[in-house]
Amino acid sequence: MNRKMITYLLGRVLMAEFFLMIPSVAVGAIYLERATLSFIIPMLILVLAGLTFGIKKPENTAIYVREGFFIVAAAWIFMSLVGALPFYISSFEFFGGVSQFSCIWDCIFEIISGFTTTGASICPDPGILPKCILFWRSFSHWVGGMGVLVFVLAIIPMSDSMHLMKAEVPGPVVGKLVPKMRQTARILYAVYTVMTLVLIVFLCAGKMPLFEAICHSFGTAGTGGFSVRTEGIGYYNSAYIDVVLSIFMILFGINFNLFYLILIKRTREALRSEELRCYLLVVGAATFAVALNIYSIYQNAGISLRHAFFQVSSIITTTGYSTVDFALWPSLSQSIIVILMMVGACAGSTGGGLKVSRVLLLLKAFVQEMKHLLHPRSVTTVRLEGSPVENSVVRSTLAYFVIYVFIVVLSTLMISLDGFDLTTNLTAELSCLNNIGPGLGRVGPMENFSGFSPLSKVILSLNMLLGRLEIFPIIVFFSPGSWKKN
Amino acid sequence: MNRKMITYLLGRVLMAEFFLMIPSVAVGAIYLERATLSFIIPMLILVLAGLTFGIKKPENTAIYVREGFFIVAAAWIFMSLVGALPFYISSFEFFGGVSQFSCIWDCIFEIISGFTTTGASICPDPGILPKCILFWRSFSHWVGGMGVLVFVLAIIPMSDSMHLMKAEVPGPVVGKLVPKMRQTARILYAVYTVMTLVLIVFLCAGKMPLFEAICHSFGTAGTGGFSVRTEGIGYYNSAYIDVVLSIFMILFGINFNLFYLILIKRTREALRSEELRCYLLVVGAATFAVALNIYSIYQNAGISLRHAFFQVSSIITTTGYSTVDFALWPSLSQSIIVILMMVGACAGSTGGGLKVSRVLLLLKAFVQEMKHLLHPRSVTTVRLEGSPVENSVVRSTLAYFVIYVFIVVLSTLMISLDGFDLTTNLTAELSCLNNIGPGLGRVGPMENFSGFSPLSKVILSLNMLLGRLEIFPIIVFFSPGSWKKN
Repeated sequence: MNRKMITYLLGRVLMAEFFLMIPSVAVGAIYLERATLSFIIPMLILVLAGLTFGIKKPENTAIYVREGFFIVAAAWIFMSLVGALPFYISSFEFFGGVSQFSCIWDCIFEIISGFTTTGASICPDPGILPKCILFWRSFSHWVGGMGVLVFVLAIIPMSDSMHLMKAEVPGPVVGKLVPKMRQTARILYAVYTVMTLVLIVFLCAGKMPLFEAICHSFGTAGTGGFSVRTEGIGYYNSAYIDVVLSIFMILFGINFNLFYLILIKRTREALRSEELRCYLLVVGAATFAVALNIYSIYQNAGISLRHAFFQVSSIITTTGYSTVDFALWPSLSQSIIVILMMVGACAGSTGGGLKVSRVLLLLKAFVQEMKHLLHPRSVTTVRLEGSPVENSVVRSTLAYFVIYVFIVVLSTLMISLDGFDLTTNLTAELSCLNNIGPGLGRVGPMENFSGFSPLSKVILSLNMLLGRLEIFPIIVFFSPGSWKKN
Repeated sequence: MNRKMITYLLGRVLMAEFFLMIPSVAVGAIYLERATLSFIIPMLILVLAGLTFGIKKPENTAIYVREGFFIVAAAWIFMSLVGALPFYISSFEFFGGVSQFSCIWDCIFEIISGFTTTGASICPDPGILPKCILFWRSFSHWVGGMGVLVFVLAIIPMSDSMHLMKAEVPGPVVGKLVPKMRQTARILYAVYTVMTLVLIVFLCAGKMPLFEAICHSFGTAGTGGFSVRTEGIGYYNSAYIDVVLSIFMILFGINFNLFYLILIKRTREALRSEELRCYLLVVGAATFAVALNIYSIYQNAGISLRHAFFQVSSIITTTGYSTVDFALWPSLSQSIIVILMMVGACAGSTGGGLKVSRVLLLLKAFVQEMKHLLHPRSVTTVRLEGSPVENSVVRSTLAYFVIYVFIVVLSTLMISLDGFDLTTNLTAELSCLNNIGPGLGRVGPMENFSGFSPLSKVILSLNMLLGRLEIFPIIVFFSPGSWKKN
């Protein structure tokens, strides 16, 4: 393990977080909020850590797979620990004291939920939080959506950063857009920023106040789901806002490489993407089935379609906004929602879940196995997006699925110690592991996660990190081998 | 496809079913029941089909993988269709009319539940059924436990029957005990019969009436779970019977090859089995955890342990007997039960589920993949029971798991059309696919499956077959390629 490089990069990440806190402070200053002061201590910690570790670049900058995984996991954990402090400090009387966080675990849960773009909240009434805290909460979605390491990579030049990208960008394979990783990271962030700005304009056009439009755009872009309104998006009760958000959620669930292809005028190639087609097909089919199923509740085709489209888009992209309480929908719709939770968005997007391409790969691997079983001597390969997939990728995708299911089963078992029903436990777990936000039962869209015990909150926080970083980095981080001296 | 050999073997199987119906008729004759007459038509069908197709052995007896899968699936489907007839006919006024089956789908569901050793019933009150029908219902467990093809193999000599054994005996790999398959099949059936007889003696010693002891022994041996009492095993309220049944359920969940090893005095080798140790460890740990968790209900360590041990043994071996209503237990215990449902018993036993060895293999495949990811150049192999596992077996186990999860997800979606809650739908599905019997919620141990729609009953019946035959044969049977003319 290249320890010097690890501490250097961690220093850089913490330094970056210092700068990322500035907009929240600015918001607090504009609204003259006392809670703004709660950013002082965390920012001091960040700048000190950044200056201590992140200045001198080590001579040996080589990073291998293990280091890549370790750095990404460590970066996310440290970032979250410091990022939770403004929540915690603002809950003291002196700094305003309107915070809804009862203990440090709540704050850590909330910020991990933010960075991992989960959007599961322990706040019963986020609407009353100070604006600077609300901004930091929503901004964490935007930062976490594209990834912090990707952000750092866009700034500092590095010889070999492929392993970092691999560990932070979701999906079974990572494509380079251009030969240089740094360039790739910049393109991704540029596309991301422009799309977010466009969404802010669209939301303001729908008469959403600027502050709320900005926060909700962050939540949409990162496929996060924190709302500044206790009632969520349902508060606005506007067909225009619902449709705009639905469409943008779908867009942010698409592989960003495709947007780059469109930018360089290779639109046809982008539209031929197997994953994209499959993703849109699932969205269409699910919207149609849910709309049909909930027609009995709303008695109006337009309203049923609008609610179905919004909720389907929100869940498959793992955003987690809601306009209605789908925990009250008929059980077919609930089952569809649980399935969409697992499927997730496209690889290389800001969305979570298994990813459409991984699900496709799993199904194709099964079909191949079936063929192999019936014709043992035939040679078959799995093809995705028109090209053959390496056997090692197929195998690691299968192994990923195995550990994914084991994590779901074990975590559900552990949180069932709190004594809630199976639906609550299972959907809370799926919601956190797939970075969605709401579940069903006691964690439905109109509920929150405050009822869980601290132990369950820690388990669910860990699940959010496992989901966002796609399991392997977190396992590497906690494996004893990574901490041994060479 | 060797069509002649397929019809010949199917004829043989139906002929065998004719003989297997005789004991039920004998029971009906002893108790002078009118319902006995309902066996006439099905037995006529069986003997006609048997004589038409099962007499002349074709010259070419070669069977390949595809034929093996096809025959096994076809045999189970046809056997079930004819086996359902006594239930159906006995429901007419003339033949007694005390049957609890409202339509032919109910009867098919019930007999598939019997043959696949699931034990899920649609009878609200089985206690009032005629004895010959109860006997046929329980006997189907005993027949299905070891397998019908295995039974046929034990009788007729065949050159190459490995593919049939492979398709019918559960588990990722099938070991030959002795070079000849026919000999292996005979040994398996001998061990099975002797153990069943011993259990009958033990139960009679606990003051269970002979008829009930026989039926419950069939249910235990096949890890089925149909009871002749509406209240299940809880009816007897006897610690002796509970403990005897618990121990025998555990025994019938062990790989039968190990009993053969013990018979030929290689006991030490049998006890070294990795799967056996893991299985007993899971039983022990689960019993302990559940007992601790339910202590608050029973307020007595002995009673808590007894109920925990019985229910854990019943679920992990996929038998499905119950002495208490575990749907009322705390949610931790319920979660443990759901997990045990999926784990299942050992490969090569009469139990269902994923099988302990398959779960072990999946975990080891993940660890291997993790190692490979961190050290791409190292060569690692998965080892089970001390020897390396072929890559093709690992891959097909992974593919099996993928399709297993997809079946769970899709079937749960489809049965949710009936509008029940998620807990009911998911556990009904898991219960049928893993051949257990009871689930939670509306299909808890004191409930039954009669509330489902005919569509759901068909889906759940199919799931029972998928689970018992381990998915591949059923897919081959329904794939269009198997029905094409060469």
